[in-house]
Amino acid sequence: MLCLALPQMGIAAVSSNLETKLSAKPSAVVNVFIGTGGDGHTFPGATRPFGMVQLSPDTQLRHFKQSYPWAAGYRYEDDSILGFSHTHFSGTGHSDLGDVLLMPYSGETKWEPGYPERAFSGYRSRFSHQQEKAEPGYYAVKLLDHEVDVELTASERVGLHRYHYGKGVEAKLLVDMRSSIYDYKSKNLWSSLRVRSNTLVTGMRITRGWAPGRQVYFAMQFSKPFQQREIQNREDAIEYRGFAGPGSGAKEKVKVEGKALVAAFNFGIPNDQSLMVKVAISAVSEEGAIANLQEMSDWDFAAERQKASDAWNTALSAVSIEAAPDMRTKAYTALYHSMMGPSLFMDIDGRYRGPDNEVHQAQGFRFHSTFSLWDTYRALHPLLTLIQPTARNADFIQSLIASQKVSPEGILPVWQFHGLETWCMIGYHAVPVIADAYLKGVTGFDAEAALKAMVSSAEYGAYGGLRHYMQYGYVPTDLEPEAASKTVEYAFDDWTIARMAEKMGKLDIAKKFYARAQNYRNVFDVNTGFIRARKANGEFRVPFDPAVSNFGSDYTEGSAWQYSWYMPHDNAGLIQMLGGDSAAIAKIDQVFDAKVDEKIYAHMEDISGLIGHYAHGNEPSHHVAYLYNYFGAPWKTQQRLQQIMDSQYHAKPDGLSGNDDLGQMSAWFAFTSFGFYPVAPGSNEYILGRPFLDKTSLNLPNGKRFVIRAENLSKANQYVGSVSLNGKPLEKNFITHTQITEGGELLFKMQSTPNKNWGSQSNARPYTQTKYRVD
Amino acid sequence: MLCLALPQMGIAAVSSNLETKLSAKPSAVVNVFIGTGGDGHTFPGATRPFGMVQLSPDTQLRHFKQSYPWAAGYRYEDDSILGFSHTHFSGTGHSDLGDVLLMPYSGETKWEPGYPERAFSGYRSRFSHQQEKAEPGYYAVKLLDHEVDVELTASERVGLHRYHYGKGVEAKLLVDMRSSIYDYKSKNLWSSLRVRSNTLVTGMRITRGWAPGRQVYFAMQFSKPFQQREIQNREDAIEYRGFAGPGSGAKEKVKVEGKALVAAFNFGIPNDQSLMVKVAISAVSEEGAIANLQEMSDWDFAAERQKASDAWNTALSAVSIEAAPDMRTKAYTALYHSMMGPSLFMDIDGRYRGPDNEVHQAQGFRFHSTFSLWDTYRALHPLLTLIQPTARNADFIQSLIASQKVSPEGILPVWQFHGLETWCMIGYHAVPVIADAYLKGVTGFDAEAALKAMVSSAEYGAYGGLRHYMQYGYVPTDLEPEAASKTVEYAFDDWTIARMAEKMGKLDIAKKFYARAQNYRNVFDVNTGFIRARKANGEFRVPFDPAVSNFGSDYTEGSAWQYSWYMPHDNAGLIQMLGGDSAAIAKIDQVFDAKVDEKIYAHMEDISGLIGHYAHGNEPSHHVAYLYNYFGAPWKTQQRLQQIMDSQYHAKPDGLSGNDDLGQMSAWFAFTSFGFYPVAPGSNEYILGRPFLDKTSLNLPNGKRFVIRAENLSKANQYVGSVSLNGKPLEKNFITHTQITEGGELLFKMQSTPNKNWGSQSNARPYTQTKYRVD
Repeated sequence: MLCLALPQMGIAAVSSNLETKLSAKPSAVVNVFIGTGGDGHTFPGATRPFGMVQLSPDTQLRHFKQSYPWAAGYRYEDDSILGFSHTHFSGTGHSDLGDVLLMPYSGETKWEPGYPERAFSGYRSRFSHQQEKAEPGYYAVKLLDHEVDVELTASERVGLHRYHYGKGVEAKLLVDMRSSIYDYKSKNLWSSLRVRSNTLVTGMRITRGWAPGRQVYFAMQFSKPFQQREIQNREDAIEYRGFAGPGSGAKEKVKVEGKALVAAFNFGIPNDQSLMVKVAISAVSEEGAIANLQEMSDWDFAAERQKASDAWNTALSAVSIEAAPDMRTKAYTALYHSMMGPSLFMDIDGRYRGPDNEVHQAQGFRFHSTFSLWDTYRALHPLLTLIQPTARNADFIQSLIASQKVSPEGILPVWQFHGLETWCMIGYHAVPVIADAYLKGVTGFDAEAALKAMVSSAEYGAYGGLRHYMQYGYVPTDLEPEAASKTVEYAFDDWTIARMAEKMGKLDIAKKFYARAQNYRNVFDVNTGFIRARKANGEFRVPFDPAVSNFGSDYTEGSAWQYSWYMPHDNAGLIQMLGGDSAAIAKIDQVFDAKVDEKIYAHMEDISGLIGHYAHGNEPSHHVAYLYNYFGAPWKTQQRLQQIMDSQYHAKPDGLSGNDDLGQMSAWFAFTSFGFYPVAPGSNEYILGRPFLDKTSLNLPNGKRFVIRAENLSKANQYVGSVSLNGKPLEKNFITHTQITEGGELLFKMQSTPNKNWGSQSNARPYTQTKYRVD
Repeated sequence: MLCLALPQMGIAAVSSNLETKLSAKPSAVVNVFIGTGGDGHTFPGATRPFGMVQLSPDTQLRHFKQSYPWAAGYRYEDDSILGFSHTHFSGTGHSDLGDVLLMPYSGETKWEPGYPERAFSGYRSRFSHQQEKAEPGYYAVKLLDHEVDVELTASERVGLHRYHYGKGVEAKLLVDMRSSIYDYKSKNLWSSLRVRSNTLVTGMRITRGWAPGRQVYFAMQFSKPFQQREIQNREDAIEYRGFAGPGSGAKEKVKVEGKALVAAFNFGIPNDQSLMVKVAISAVSEEGAIANLQEMSDWDFAAERQKASDAWNTALSAVSIEAAPDMRTKAYTALYHSMMGPSLFMDIDGRYRGPDNEVHQAQGFRFHSTFSLWDTYRALHPLLTLIQPTARNADFIQSLIASQKVSPEGILPVWQFHGLETWCMIGYHAVPVIADAYLKGVTGFDAEAALKAMVSSAEYGAYGGLRHYMQYGYVPTDLEPEAASKTVEYAFDDWTIARMAEKMGKLDIAKKFYARAQNYRNVFDVNTGFIRARKANGEFRVPFDPAVSNFGSDYTEGSAWQYSWYMPHDNAGLIQMLGGDSAAIAKIDQVFDAKVDEKIYAHMEDISGLIGHYAHGNEPSHHVAYLYNYFGAPWKTQQRLQQIMDSQYHAKPDGLSGNDDLGQMSAWFAFTSFGFYPVAPGSNEYILGRPFLDKTSLNLPNGKRFVIRAENLSKANQYVGSVSLNGKPLEKNFITHTQITEGGELLFKMQSTPNKNWGSQSNARPYTQTKYRVD
């Protein structure tokens, strides 16, 4: 272990210039604070792309009933910091994590966090955004109450802290094993701390949060030996404490167990006023965490920060963007946020914990977890398939398949993190993720095993009314909640199975699932023009109000206004049921143009970013603006996109209108800013909207480059006049994946008035509408 | 899986003849009910020698403050059974375990155990000793309220249940994951159940009992598929339940987690009215438990029962006993109870969980745990060293060394079970266990590593006042509780380190620890003739009452009357301090002959079996009766032994006067019945008492035989007239380990009057008194 002298780098100096500079390096224009306020639920801390450690400040502890706003641990609106924990979700609505909270401090040890409204009431410290700075892979802040400057960076499995204390002050550090995002007190089932030497402490905890029985192990290494330490178990009442082990009180015990452990370390007065701490996490064991520390062998903060920055620039350079500064920041920040998950969840020896909560050995792939699939199958995974190396995508798919193999239910993940299933949201949306990747030529996984896992998931009767869905052709509302949403999402997932099976030559499976894919029709009420749930006896549920969205309703975080557009694989069917293009256009206009009292959705935290009934802050709406292309009115798509981009995304902390949802909101932005969007993953089609960037170069995994240029782009010129691909006019209002991966240039000529002729003919519409169906 | 038709074996028929028959097979004369009533705390269930699964009925659930009498789960005095769980301690005072409780039943499902005083108030059932039978490796009982006949047997890692239900009745089974010996409600931190098929269920739980954070995994296999099942989480209040997983309510979920899981299975009406269940346990994982099931591949109850019986007969045949039936039963039962621990604690692939609560791989040995060392270093381990194969002893020693290597404190186990340290009792008594085995020639372990581990344990300052002991030469009472007991026990342990180091040629270590071994003198008050605690300033603590025994006193489960004899390695020193042989004899007579109001010890549950101040029910007294030999009065030892054997051991359920303590009480009986006792383990000496068996043949691990014969043995002839070894008169009042292992015959001629000449000369006394000291 080499303890290098730290460079003289005061936080105040670093953070004095908060203004983002334009730079050749993408990471320099990312504003990691976008989404950390308002409803975005992103965090500003330090992580690598898809990193296992996501090290970030936490500003508030809440009981789970009040936890929604603090799902990422940090809120830009807050003015005090609790400490810095090592695991976070980026943009979720529900939450968990916040593992292993470290808080450097000076002066008296306070064992409780205290209250944000009362300074010095606990170990919490006030901070100011004036003395805070963050960029991809780096976060810095001054803890005003403790006069400690904190800097954070991370490798994949290790968080690195550097603290700078006041002159002549004892360097102290508190580790609060209780601290959790989402439920402070009852979530911790058990924890332990083990002092292995005066520079190495390990521990673990088991929690019953979003994922029940989740185990996290860690190893914490100090750059200097501590001189004193104390560990307390702060449980209110313990029925049976067991026999006291060796150690004079809590100050000498080398292993302490309990539900509420807090440790305080005193490093004396360091000559250089500084202390560094490495924290590695592991899902397997403390030994695993210790081994993971090897990933960061030196004590060179600057070098680690540089490596993290380099990793981000490599990842972000998959896309070269030319645009006005504000737009460039929003686009690169969107790309940044699209690389927070799925995140690595495997020790350096390849061991990981799967959905059976047992330890497994990865063979030939890197296990990733945090699959927020209901959100991310829509645009995030298609984006990653486009811009991430094939190996990374194959890791994702292999992780899904490996999870299915050891899943107690024998099905693919629904909403998985740290290897464990949460059963959050609906659908079997790992299916379109795999199918889309397969159909786009991602290799490196066993397609046979994948298809088998997909079919198993689609036929697991006990899950989400699937038994009834298979019997009735829809999920009956009297047998299962959220029946309408489930039916239409299952039907789409089924279509992607059919598509993949067809390509693999498994025509029996393809036929069966193409048929299931039409089930959305069974819940479409042609009289009202809405998706509605039926009862088992075939009758629609009454009374019916298309604006109703409740827990216990027929829709998942949505209303009939929002869900009636969900047959992305068969918009021709939609048009037919609505009575033609004009009716479809009129109805979708109604969605956007409705005068909606926002109160009707106010009880649903996730329904936000309203434009009429359109809720951009939540996923069911995400494809809707692009549907005009299917109806022959792409200029209306162009118009709506401008409306959405203007109102829903801003380069400021509260700049996201809804939860970023592990990058789905950001992936929507990225695609839309490029100029197209994958309405139906599995179709290999991208529906053309309009670009918001002057020039986008997709530096593709295959080494080719696909450039999108927007000629005459300006605030006034929001309509597409014409499109050409590699110099030839493009009449279709979509492009295919192959057209992109072959490389080339897509040129949009922008103008201030709609060109109602371009892309409006029936043969200009996506193939999805006519080809990929069973008749 | 082969489901054989079961033989028609009704319990009523089997148990109709409870009378033990004399037989050539030792197992047939064992009465496993000895100690299951009164203070014995043994259990009557089925296990193999040193088996990992110890499957036994539990009769009561208690909060820990009331749990002492139910430390083994079962009390003979009870008349209802809760179910059958797979882990038990044999004879402890404190407790834990009772993992994975199964209860077969018929009729309505009751989810709570109900009350013993109210029939049918829960799933508990009444039973009668008239319809109960048990023998080594087998237990059978009729559950009267359910009309189910239960039979149990076990392999090393698998318990096998066979249930016989009433005619035309549905076969049902309840699994209560809450059920625990010692604290029913708050001990369970977490548990899970996973239904892998309709014949295989796995699960785990984590508890905070005696060993904090203990994890137990299990796999349960049914001989027939269940037709229905339901799993409930019976927690009173759950702050956050998480999202519901697939499954219609609890009846279809394949994985359920919670703190209070109970599962009910219905197997329909079996043609043969029967059901068999295998339950394997593992400390590593559910996969480990499933693999452990391989140990018992068939469904042949009779064959498994026979294998268990054979295993016991092989183990018990280490000693061939001729004696009157009652005495033969007591002696073989004592041997039986001496093989309950240390017990196997390792999966079939060699993985186990160590004191760091992490998983390790055993290399070249079988990991055993359940080391009740404060009790068992005295006579149990010396007995096992004498009669168990060397390989088994090497396993014990290697398990201790392996534990030290991964111990967070870097020390040998103190009171360990399931791999985990409990910090119960005092001393570092793994040290004499290892030294005694080494000095007696047990091989198969790394002596260098062992000595290093022993020294580390003896020098770990944070443990039990060792820092002060090393500084002051005694444990000061003002700095550490139980200071007097700690000082004298540490001094003895130190002596065994010196002995082993000396034999290994490590003379520096030997010298150092021979010096430490004299520390007992520092707490001997020559004015009162008692061991008394001193304060750090050197003064004895006042006031002093030699009969006082309290938590917080200077003695561990004892008084000065009991503890003042604890320098077994230097009784010459004791004689000197007391003022000569006569004074020593007079003082020890006082111990036995005192008129003691039993109330003065009544507050200490463990101090039982009183004869004056002598408390045979607890370990500090165990060597005391043999001390007369050191004082030149072996005939008094003979007299006291008769007094103890008559009053403290009976062939009936309440036949043990104190907790069997994992076999220590039984090992005392075994040695004493043979005719000698290891007063000072590490000395290789056995002090001659008098035999209580007509003939004992020790069939030694080296293939030789050592026979002890008692000529003219009768109730009246309780004194030794003369002793001869291999036909030559033996004048010494002890024999050495080598004399035994060379094989031969030790002949005691018994008579009705004391022979005060035999063994009374100073050169007849143990070498310990003169040789093994530093001067």
